[in-house]
Amino acid sequence: MKLLDKINSLEDLKKIPVEKLENLTKEIRDVIIKRVNKIGGHLGSNLAVVELITALHYVFDSPKDKFIFDVSHQCYAHKILTGRKDFFIKDELLDKISGYTNQNESEHDLFITGHTSTSISQACGIAKARDLKKEDYNVLAIIGDGALGGGEAFEGLSNAYELKSNLIIVLNDNEMSISNNYGGLYKNLEILRKTKGKSKTNFFKALGFEYVYLDEGNDITKLVKTFRELKDNNVPIVVHIHTKKGCGLRVAEENKEEFHWCKKQGIDGKYLRGKQDENYPIVVNEFFKNTFKKNQDFVIVSPATPTLTFISKEFRKILKNHYIDVGICEQHSVSFLSGLLKGKIKAILEIDSSFMQRAYDQILQDICLNNIPATILVYGGNISQSEATHQRVFDIPILSNIPNLIYLAPTNKEELLGMLSFAKEQNKYPLAIRIPTGKVVSTGEMDNTNYYEINKFKVIQNGEKIAIIGVGNFFEKASNVCDILRKKYHINATLINPCFISNVDKDLLENLKENHKVVVVLEDGIKEGGFGYKVCNFFANSFVKVKCYGADKEFISRRKIELSYNKYRLEESMIIDDIISELEE
Amino acid sequence: MKLLDKINSLEDLKKIPVEKLENLTKEIRDVIIKRVNKIGGHLGSNLAVVELITALHYVFDSPKDKFIFDVSHQCYAHKILTGRKDFFIKDELLDKISGYTNQNESEHDLFITGHTSTSISQACGIAKARDLKKEDYNVLAIIGDGALGGGEAFEGLSNAYELKSNLIIVLNDNEMSISNNYGGLYKNLEILRKTKGKSKTNFFKALGFEYVYLDEGNDITKLVKTFRELKDNNVPIVVHIHTKKGCGLRVAEENKEEFHWCKKQGIDGKYLRGKQDENYPIVVNEFFKNTFKKNQDFVIVSPATPTLTFISKEFRKILKNHYIDVGICEQHSVSFLSGLLKGKIKAILEIDSSFMQRAYDQILQDICLNNIPATILVYGGNISQSEATHQRVFDIPILSNIPNLIYLAPTNKEELLGMLSFAKEQNKYPLAIRIPTGKVVSTGEMDNTNYYEINKFKVIQNGEKIAIIGVGNFFEKASNVCDILRKKYHINATLINPCFISNVDKDLLENLKENHKVVVVLEDGIKEGGFGYKVCNFFANSFVKVKCYGADKEFISRRKIELSYNKYRLEESMIIDDIISELEE
Repeated sequence: MKLLDKINSLEDLKKIPVEKLENLTKEIRDVIIKRVNKIGGHLGSNLAVVELITALHYVFDSPKDKFIFDVSHQCYAHKILTGRKDFFIKDELLDKISGYTNQNESEHDLFITGHTSTSISQACGIAKARDLKKEDYNVLAIIGDGALGGGEAFEGLSNAYELKSNLIIVLNDNEMSISNNYGGLYKNLEILRKTKGKSKTNFFKALGFEYVYLDEGNDITKLVKTFRELKDNNVPIVVHIHTKKGCGLRVAEENKEEFHWCKKQGIDGKYLRGKQDENYPIVVNEFFKNTFKKNQDFVIVSPATPTLTFISKEFRKILKNHYIDVGICEQHSVSFLSGLLKGKIKAILEIDSSFMQRAYDQILQDICLNNIPATILVYGGNISQSEATHQRVFDIPILSNIPNLIYLAPTNKEELLGMLSFAKEQNKYPLAIRIPTGKVVSTGEMDNTNYYEINKFKVIQNGEKIAIIGVGNFFEKASNVCDILRKKYHINATLINPCFISNVDKDLLENLKENHKVVVVLEDGIKEGGFGYKVCNFFANSFVKVKCYGADKEFISRRKIELSYNKYRLEESMIIDDIISELEE
Repeated sequence: MKLLDKINSLEDLKKIPVEKLENLTKEIRDVIIKRVNKIGGHLGSNLAVVELITALHYVFDSPKDKFIFDVSHQCYAHKILTGRKDFFIKDELLDKISGYTNQNESEHDLFITGHTSTSISQACGIAKARDLKKEDYNVLAIIGDGALGGGEAFEGLSNAYELKSNLIIVLNDNEMSISNNYGGLYKNLEILRKTKGKSKTNFFKALGFEYVYLDEGNDITKLVKTFRELKDNNVPIVVHIHTKKGCGLRVAEENKEEFHWCKKQGIDGKYLRGKQDENYPIVVNEFFKNTFKKNQDFVIVSPATPTLTFISKEFRKILKNHYIDVGICEQHSVSFLSGLLKGKIKAILEIDSSFMQRAYDQILQDICLNNIPATILVYGGNISQSEATHQRVFDIPILSNIPNLIYLAPTNKEELLGMLSFAKEQNKYPLAIRIPTGKVVSTGEMDNTNYYEINKFKVIQNGEKIAIIGVGNFFEKASNVCDILRKKYHINATLINPCFISNVDKDLLENLKENHKVVVVLEDGIKEGGFGYKVCNFFANSFVKVKCYGADKEFISRRKIELSYNKYRLEESMIIDDIISELEE
């Protein structure tokens, strides 16, 4: 670590002679591998850009020059070089820093970013502000790993043309998205790689850009030379750099998809995922695998996130052309779904709760307004310790307030399977299912619910005075609270699994008025605008009190789940205290 | 009308000899002009594509072949030719049909569509379904009028490449969006027009498409020939057709922006808008015009909708490069805004409530998570008689449930100006303002409210038992209800203007508990997930009853506002009846 030891700021970096930079990048690479080893993170993508980022910082002058990272999961080398190397080296600091850029961490990070394809638009804004203020600096959008295929990146590219001033789009082309890239854009990148940038068929030139290609994207000397040539350039330019995903770690180079993001692992080089414990995404895909054996009348669509939703390579092989990865194109994925169903093919979209947000309008217009019986499986929705960029707490307010949509929240494996069967069979409703998170709960009993009776809640246990509605993941919590109330306080509460979270079961709630004083709703997401608020509104005109539990309307990053539960009074003991004091009033 | 008289179906159309088609298109054009004359509608765009659509239906076989219209505001000729001409001719039927495609009207309309850039994605879905089912028909996406610049259209284009089968993208290039087109994509279209499609620099070829250009896009004979050549083509192809916006009506050809959409007018040719009565959008832009004279430290951004938000040509001339039209790129517009503010330029986005939905994720991530003090002006939010595709009732649930965002709802001109001043000055909060709709209400008294005291509601009148909260547009309704209660029933109700609709004023609401039995919330938007539900939740744990009034969660099209108000019990007399019966309980 001789070189890295000396680097505490970008000024230190610039003192190093060019010929020593390669050694430095090796040290940076080691540090990245070590961190991911210990706490997990984006590995392959970060290894690919060590030279690229080092060269950028060597040539340009951050923070005067503005670096905007797309998605920003490739920012590890950037963080190491901008005063944050200790967070990659010292064990006690490893988890004290975000894996994404964060304006609160450093003046070298311009945005908190975690979703794709926004960097060019943001860079256009900064460049336009610079020009209006007659200031003078370079603006760089660093984009790659599939993000260029997202529609907003194109909107940014097309608008960048209007700037007529400095804007440098650094395209890190590692030939991959999270998984493989798809589509005409990536075909053109392939042509450009094969012709070393010389092909006349050039997407970027067609959009009016100047264009530079560098094939040796992990050669620091060539990178430095390339960047020096285009520094202070006065028109928008695309510099297309061919890098190698996983570069420098053979197992990552050879297993690009698996190494895009890694869980923490024991020993260097042993990152490869072993056999996965059963989880809900696996339950989903097993269901479709079994269904597919009998009937191939459906397709599964993924917006470039098969790993997030556990669509294994093996499963993809079985599905063949019944699996469609559309790239990081959430909007397209939803409109595409509407077309598939219009063409009489049952279509299922597997999408992360956080990324689903991108397609709000398409879900509302193309699916729900058109009453298309699509199935949207929403993954990961819960209160978690994730980065704020990936908080998956907004899906209930988003989906449950759209007309026509049925949003289901299963509480266990069998119910999930029952709902999937319903989704697969029904042709009446736009449907979304909130795939549970956490350990798989199994009742062992097949779910025979008739989900065509929409908005019918399930009463699991009849009681009085108190009714507890446990939504999806939090049904177990509701059930535990009921148990404790009975055992410790001899209170026989009503326990309800709503299943449907896009509307309330008016008859059932009406009946509660007779002999219930308090209704408690436990919801694993943001409270505001969510399911509990519908229950509040239902009882607003009665003397039944309602207490909603869930996340506050706030952005939180990597906060320990215990702290969140404590703050939101979601610990079972707290809920019970609240109930008891309510009954005593 | 000799030819059109004979055409009651597409079969009739196909019987007409090619050489007579030109006469037919003249008749269709006359009918379109007559309809828009009488009830308003999209004029320029529809006049441009009369020949194009007639030729398409002459050559292809709908409904076997699938026609997917982007935005679908250019579908008039399509409707006339597919059995709906009476709705364009007979006075009593003119308003009985949608101005957009609607699957419930005809088997020739595949989708209910009103937002842009979805057609290629939908066409990909249908084409993929066709291929999986081994069926055989043509799939056509008909896109133009600026929609190609939207990011989703690009996602669709890039994905279409993967099809390797029939997909015909008919690009209607009338050189315009609603207003002028911007960006590198449109520059390339210009190059292609100038070179009659021969330029090597070809955006579509770069994405792997076959490409055909037709310069005489209003020449029906050439259109028929072109389409015949590519019918049953077995790879994705783009056919780029140069049309003339407003074609056939000189005043529309010469005033393309004004004639994109027209209000109904008395006499042919007198469509040009006269001096506009004062309305809230004009109040906004007058504010910025006056501000700009003193200080040019801000920019106004529009996603291609200057006419919707009344950014007049004169105002644009004054603003010069401080006005930025980004094209139909709502996502980009928001991320771009975050960049402008990061570059220390105050930036204001003027966006329609309905189109704002496209940028949900960017508002949440790029603006709110990053705590960027942007100003988003949301236009048209209300319960109206619009098409379901343009229902502007979802913006409160969307924006008011996003952390960090302050959403303001002014109730009159002076308050709007006060809030705009605050927005212009403050650098602390992501801010949105719901621009009121309807006739301008003026108090004549300058608003000196300190909006830095966030979430502070205004009590306009102190009373007891009943408190009425009137949100934005509906404050007047609340005030009227109060007046009637006092005059007719001698009930002195509390009247509240919340101003802030993203959170509740806890202190104020807490105080209401003392001497109020019922709180009424009147909200000009969808109830579910909205502001009223926040009030419900606040009082859920008390004995104060809450009654929320607003739109139901439903899609409605062109329903008379009186019917909606009646259904939602939003008539003042109904609200009063409800209150009286509540007090008598």
